[in-house]
Amino acid sequence: MAQCEAKERKILVAVDEGEESMYALSWCLNNILVSQNSKDTLILLYAKATPPVYTALDGTGYLFSDDIVATMEKYNNEVAESVMQKANKLCKEVHNLDVKVETKVESGDARDVICQVAEKLDVNLVVMGSHGYGLIKRAFLGSVSNHCAQKVQCPVLIVKRPKSEAPSK
Amino acid sequence: MAQCEAKERKILVAVDEGEESMYALSWCLNNILVSQNSKDTLILLYAKATPPVYTALDGTGYLFSDDIVATMEKYNNEVAESVMQKANKLCKEVHNLDVKVETKVESGDARDVICQVAEKLDVNLVVMGSHGYGLIKRAFLGSVSNHCAQKVQCPVLIVKRPKSEAPSK
Repeated sequence: MAQCEAKERKILVAVDEGEESMYALSWCLNNILVSQNSKDTLILLYAKATPPVYTALDGTGYLFSDDIVATMEKYNNEVAESVMQKANKLCKEVHNLDVKVETKVESGDARDVICQVAEKLDVNLVVMGSHGYGLIKRAFLGSVSNHCAQKVQCPVLIVKRPKSEAPSK
Repeated sequence: MAQCEAKERKILVAVDEGEESMYALSWCLNNILVSQNSKDTLILLYAKATPPVYTALDGTGYLFSDDIVATMEKYNNEVAESVMQKANKLCKEVHNLDVKVETKVESGDARDVICQVAEKLDVNLVVMGSHGYGLIKRAFLGSVSNHCAQKVQCPVLIVKRPKSEAPSK
């Protein structure tokens, strides 16, 4: 059986707007990346909603005008930037962290984006929160983490936000 | 956000007869447990098929006699022992491993056993292969890892056996 090398690993952490993905990143930083004395690369990945390049009918038959499309795209970009800032801040807060941090924003469905990037970059581990979709979308599509755990070839670490960390509301 | 402590963690690795669970253990040893300079406890868990305490009809209406039941139980115990020996051997092969290794054999369905033990021992991480059932049973029950990833409250690491490691037959 081949031994897994703990050196020069590529670890992909899928981040999104939710607190759970930030908790997953934090768990990974504190339990996998710290004190390994390695040259790990941490890749922070955010899947951005696909920008509507052309004006298009939405599900209700409503036609988006160009300015609305532009506003949506601007909003998506701002969210992506905000998520990455938060994730980068978390990385900097961890002491003894000797990793190279890269950020990557890709457009598309999170399920596809995570699997594609994991395969393309040939990462050694994918880390993600257990949710990543709203309740209704999850009921139809299944959770992002279940999908990725099945599709991705490398090990997948699924982190749930502990109950004590959950918002009280 | 609470920081996760990398000290004195309890890590539960579900092992079974398959090579995949041994690969999962190996991955965990080399990527999570090595060089953390911690007082981690590694708990090796094997879910043994429930022993038929009383003679009972099987699905075909066939009555197991006492001696067959005893033979089945003996076989199950031998398999459990063999799996644990293999797992312990893997742990000893890893250098710089400063963890306490405990073994635990519980009777029952792997899905239930893993979730129950993870909760009871309040572990910090569950590690398992992505399979753990035969193809037909999985089609009906879903994979053990999917079930556990949903039910277990702590982070779950699902490790697939790399394609290059798969048997050629």
